[in-house]
Amino acid sequence: MVKVAILGFGVVGSGVAEVLSGNGAGIQKKADELIEVKYILDVRDFPDSPFAQHFVKDFSVIEHDPEVNVVVETIGGVGAALDFTERALKQGKSVVTSNKELVATHGRRLLDLAAQNNAVYLFEASVGGGIPILRPLSECMSANEILEICGILNGTANYIFTRMVKDHVPFAEALAGAQANGYAEQDPSADVEGKDTCRKLCILSSIAYGWHLLPDQVPTTGITKITLADEAYAAAAGRSLKLLGRSIAREDGTICAYVEPHFVGNQDPLAGVEDVFNAIKVKGNAVGDVMFYGRGAGKLPTASAVVADVIAAARQMDRAGYRPWQPNRPDAVFSPDELSSQWYVRLASGELAGEKLTVPNAEAGESGWITAAMTRPELDKLLAGRDVLAVIRVLD
Amino acid sequence: MVKVAILGFGVVGSGVAEVLSGNGAGIQKKADELIEVKYILDVRDFPDSPFAQHFVKDFSVIEHDPEVNVVVETIGGVGAALDFTERALKQGKSVVTSNKELVATHGRRLLDLAAQNNAVYLFEASVGGGIPILRPLSECMSANEILEICGILNGTANYIFTRMVKDHVPFAEALAGAQANGYAEQDPSADVEGKDTCRKLCILSSIAYGWHLLPDQVPTTGITKITLADEAYAAAAGRSLKLLGRSIAREDGTICAYVEPHFVGNQDPLAGVEDVFNAIKVKGNAVGDVMFYGRGAGKLPTASAVVADVIAAARQMDRAGYRPWQPNRPDAVFSPDELSSQWYVRLASGELAGEKLTVPNAEAGESGWITAAMTRPELDKLLAGRDVLAVIRVLD
Repeated sequence: MVKVAILGFGVVGSGVAEVLSGNGAGIQKKADELIEVKYILDVRDFPDSPFAQHFVKDFSVIEHDPEVNVVVETIGGVGAALDFTERALKQGKSVVTSNKELVATHGRRLLDLAAQNNAVYLFEASVGGGIPILRPLSECMSANEILEICGILNGTANYIFTRMVKDHVPFAEALAGAQANGYAEQDPSADVEGKDTCRKLCILSSIAYGWHLLPDQVPTTGITKITLADEAYAAAAGRSLKLLGRSIAREDGTICAYVEPHFVGNQDPLAGVEDVFNAIKVKGNAVGDVMFYGRGAGKLPTASAVVADVIAAARQMDRAGYRPWQPNRPDAVFSPDELSSQWYVRLASGELAGEKLTVPNAEAGESGWITAAMTRPELDKLLAGRDVLAVIRVLD
Repeated sequence: MVKVAILGFGVVGSGVAEVLSGNGAGIQKKADELIEVKYILDVRDFPDSPFAQHFVKDFSVIEHDPEVNVVVETIGGVGAALDFTERALKQGKSVVTSNKELVATHGRRLLDLAAQNNAVYLFEASVGGGIPILRPLSECMSANEILEICGILNGTANYIFTRMVKDHVPFAEALAGAQANGYAEQDPSADVEGKDTCRKLCILSSIAYGWHLLPDQVPTTGITKITLADEAYAAAAGRSLKLLGRSIAREDGTICAYVEPHFVGNQDPLAGVEDVFNAIKVKGNAVGDVMFYGRGAGKLPTASAVVADVIAAARQMDRAGYRPWQPNRPDAVFSPDELSSQWYVRLASGELAGEKLTVPNAEAGESGWITAAMTRPELDKLLAGRDVLAVIRVLD
């Protein structure tokens, strides 16, 4: 019998309770053991919930109940979530989470703490919502050296871009629509400034390369400056605007990870990914490109990934989860300034060498260009003194 | 120390040896233990191979060497491959394979035999080549009831369709090109008649639904009758022609599995899958649609999946692999004749109710149509007495 405690009864936490009870029979069969929610920790009261009898307000009840084998942490952030995760692992309880900030920041230490206490720390739901990605990357692609990861990792940003293109509304209006539909938080900064993508990229990279890449090593540019004009020029260039998290390994073992909007060619499978969907492309030296696609967020998709980890923890109480991450390697990170790319440039006036893009109803004097391949510092030199309205990297 | 024996030094077998040695350092780290090829079984001699000293011709050497923990079966077929797999499992050796015919036909019995002998039987490479699909389906989606599987599972058939469309060459010429490029066997019947897709669909369905679906329960239509005219009408309908393996679960627990060419709408991510790429869409009741995409065949991609299973077997010597499959359920299968779909119909003469498709240079009198949704028996009744040149299901 596996007894579960859920920490936080928000969107994901309540989804986990729902999936565990709703798909009950199938899940019990797959877990080989009965899985039962014993506690739900939340500061709020939920007297009308079907799970009302399970609520507690004091974590130490869970911490000191030897019957609890698996703790599901869906609190978020790095405050109470970190404290409770550490205390649970120290008691030998496995912890499953969807908390990307916590994993990206403290993943290495928590994986080690789990291993020291014969527990597992699993976080499939922290990247790509319900899309299976971390386990396939960690296990199914283990025969490969990973050469590149490139993904649409934030559904909110992708939804905003899709609405800008399809409904011809500017960024602010598309964002307001995303908030009205529940796709964006009231404080949308983590999504639109790229921090959420950055955290997910750190988790993917740490699993792929085996050492803990930290968020502050990932130069991150969000989408707040993207205009309808940029979307129009992207279409004129036969490309789609996407916010990508990308990490690239060089043969010498160094990696470059960054988050930026990109022009993505329409023949690339990433270009067709719309609305709140996510897609992650991974290149291995043996398998070539593989891509994983699905809903990157949402109550039930995310809960689906959490519950799969609960089942895995239940089946593998005495087994390894992810491999440990080696310590961060500050000297193994190189800057995206070293990457040569073509660039989209929008100018307020004048001409530029390269492919000129033509859009209907362009602002007077404005023009859009696709340059030859060069590094960003080379481009900045070329553009010195010009009236530059936008610069966006073109994915090669 | 894990010692491996590879059975069959063909394309996949030699790829496995290559990946195990080429990515050596990374693999050893991921396996937690040293993995070493001890034997390679083949009837042929390979005196110039770097692995020359490992060759044996008598399986009993491998069978009776207690040092061998993992046997990689890349012989193919259900003759010697079945015999050697059974004998290896009975000795408690785990077996890893890419042999879809063997798994689709005897998977249930071999999984049971593995479990009885504390070994695992793993076959990620049997479906989708290097694409991680069986483990994600089995583990990461375990919180879901699987509602539908729909996939482009045969790279050869997809390559032929892509060449027909892009190079405007008829089926026979596209097939010859596939053979010249090494994408199709000299006897291409398993690929173009849909048998290969059928076997892969049986493996996916057995994992998804938990009981062994057999190939003869899957009505299978290949692509040999598809003409350039059908491709032209597909384009006119805003759709792409794809050979799909599809299985659908009804709420009463019955399933329908079939293999047929389909018209796929261009907004569907499957429509953009070209050349030898495979893609598998899986719908779970919690996660919704997820899709897995990559190279479905080829030496190194397939070897990548085999070696990942070898690593998993090495890490999990005493652990469960896939869950056991329950016995086949003859009464739980319903016919695709019960599925209502729109249909593409090409007529030699006359008119039909529905959307008329217009193509340039149509044969005199010929016409293409998309009908309303109905079952195949309803359609056949409607078409009785008509001069029908082609009927293809439209994916809804």
